[in-house]
Amino acid sequence: MKKFINDPNKVVDEALEGYVAAYPDIVKVLQDARVLIRKKDPDFAKVGVITGGGSGHKPAFLGYVGEGLCDAAAIGEIFAAPPADWIYKGIKKINMGKGVICLYGNFSGDIMNFRMAKTLAEVDGIEVDEVIAKDDIASSPKENMGNRRAVAGEVIMWKVGGAAAAEGMSLQQIKEVTSRAVFSTRSFGVGTYPCIIPATGKPSFKLEEDEMEIGIGHHGEPGIKKEKIKTADETTTMLMDAILEDLPFQSGDKVCVLINGLGATPFQEMYIVNKKVSEILEKYKIKKLITYVGEYFTSLEMAGFSITLTKVDDDIARLIQAKADSPMFKQFDLNK
Amino acid sequence: MKKFINDPNKVVDEALEGYVAAYPDIVKVLQDARVLIRKKDPDFAKVGVITGGGSGHKPAFLGYVGEGLCDAAAIGEIFAAPPADWIYKGIKKINMGKGVICLYGNFSGDIMNFRMAKTLAEVDGIEVDEVIAKDDIASSPKENMGNRRAVAGEVIMWKVGGAAAAEGMSLQQIKEVTSRAVFSTRSFGVGTYPCIIPATGKPSFKLEEDEMEIGIGHHGEPGIKKEKIKTADETTTMLMDAILEDLPFQSGDKVCVLINGLGATPFQEMYIVNKKVSEILEKYKIKKLITYVGEYFTSLEMAGFSITLTKVDDDIARLIQAKADSPMFKQFDLNK
Repeated sequence: MKKFINDPNKVVDEALEGYVAAYPDIVKVLQDARVLIRKKDPDFAKVGVITGGGSGHKPAFLGYVGEGLCDAAAIGEIFAAPPADWIYKGIKKINMGKGVICLYGNFSGDIMNFRMAKTLAEVDGIEVDEVIAKDDIASSPKENMGNRRAVAGEVIMWKVGGAAAAEGMSLQQIKEVTSRAVFSTRSFGVGTYPCIIPATGKPSFKLEEDEMEIGIGHHGEPGIKKEKIKTADETTTMLMDAILEDLPFQSGDKVCVLINGLGATPFQEMYIVNKKVSEILEKYKIKKLITYVGEYFTSLEMAGFSITLTKVDDDIARLIQAKADSPMFKQFDLNK
Repeated sequence: MKKFINDPNKVVDEALEGYVAAYPDIVKVLQDARVLIRKKDPDFAKVGVITGGGSGHKPAFLGYVGEGLCDAAAIGEIFAAPPADWIYKGIKKINMGKGVICLYGNFSGDIMNFRMAKTLAEVDGIEVDEVIAKDDIASSPKENMGNRRAVAGEVIMWKVGGAAAAEGMSLQQIKEVTSRAVFSTRSFGVGTYPCIIPATGKPSFKLEEDEMEIGIGHHGEPGIKKEKIKTADETTTMLMDAILEDLPFQSGDKVCVLINGLGATPFQEMYIVNKKVSEILEKYKIKKLITYVGEYFTSLEMAGFSITLTKVDDDIARLIQAKADSPMFKQFDLNK
């Protein structure tokens, strides 16, 4: 294992310390819980936005704590949910009297701990609600959409929910528009090389030298099938066919495109994928609102990528195009 | 070779097409030369800023074409300089009557072609000057600083030169302040895993399973020595000791910090490195103006990182903190 770490059991804490050292004017960590929060309070009392989950997915989760995005992120160990007590302390800290929305992914540990935290906060009289991302179409058939896990679609959830809170929407309004964005979001990914979990020093999965895993999860969960590696165009077409059919996306729709690298895939390959995505969307007369290409939700140094499409209405489009300013997600206001 | 490409010889063209498809309102490609330029002209006639070099370093070079950065980038094949004719056409296109500054790295192919382009443009009556980054302290001893190659310090050169042009400075003023920034910039890197060049399918270098290459170049050029992999703290201390001594940086100095990932190194490891960098700077009473951590100048999927320090005076600090808005480098104005 060739990693630049000091102690495999202190990776998360030391990286967090280095993160705060890089952006000391923007973020800080709570004293009694591993929760990253914004250093300065928002300009007005708004609904608080909290996320959280396992580490190893940078920029998720901590990179999305900032203006127009999340107010707090509870930070678990590598690929493990943060404890309920930390989430609860985060909720208490960011509540400005308008309630708190929890925006997280569909993983059992996260669900259990976020809901326990919600119960604890409600005892304190804090109004808490949640939206759970379930965008990975490979993880369960459409008939059981509720069982689908979250992948890069979480980024769209944070962008929409964070902008809705920044606009001054109520807790129920935020839940409604963010749920709509989550429901309109579909992702599908493919992996080629595993990552090495620091604590074990072991690869997260195994593939032959000419194989890819179709529908892989963000923690190396097995997908639908293993296949011989194909060209970028063939792979992209296969993923897009499944994504477009699933919602389904239709001619005349407007979409947000997110091509997400899992960690070790060069940007160049992601742009070659985007070329084909663009051609397919054009063929079906589906319009692009905005395209994001980059590493938005990684799995340490795993190789591979995912494609995420979100069908946008006027509200979702406005919220996606709104200003965002966190250390790892900056966007000028595109609605001007 | 498991790569998401179609044709190993069309990687650069197809990726460029996918890039323009992602940001069609912001950038476009010249018709008769592989040069990326800003779609909209700047608000006023200013000095044009052009860069360029081999591909495979994304976000460099094309990701830095945007407001407050470069107006054009000439795009070579993977790890190969762009032809002089393309650079010349780029210079002609972005000249607004105020002259053009070429900001590129110290590699023989780039020097030859940029200077040939300069000569061609001068025949047309266009005033052209250049600043060449030479920040890699591992590539040549201080006595022969002129032979040092460029690594991630190019990013600081583009940030300072691009902001200076956006402020309306003259060609000579831009050259002066950007040269000062380049002279005050020192980088040192380390590699652990090679990248695979698409056209050959071969790794760019070889290392044993427990080795790192100290002072590696951006194309896998050999460094000072191979060593057994060390902890993040030990590796960082070794790099920082050499960087600090080289300028030398001294107590009371103010610096810009750039921790650059080469492609496959997880963000977490880079933040663990930044933790130690911060501690060392604090120990020597060197102040941080700003810290950048991320993939700013990669080598396909190579693993490893570099540390870059720039000593800043008031002018350089203001220019680094100025607004920048390209698809892959966005920064709100921090001088406000």
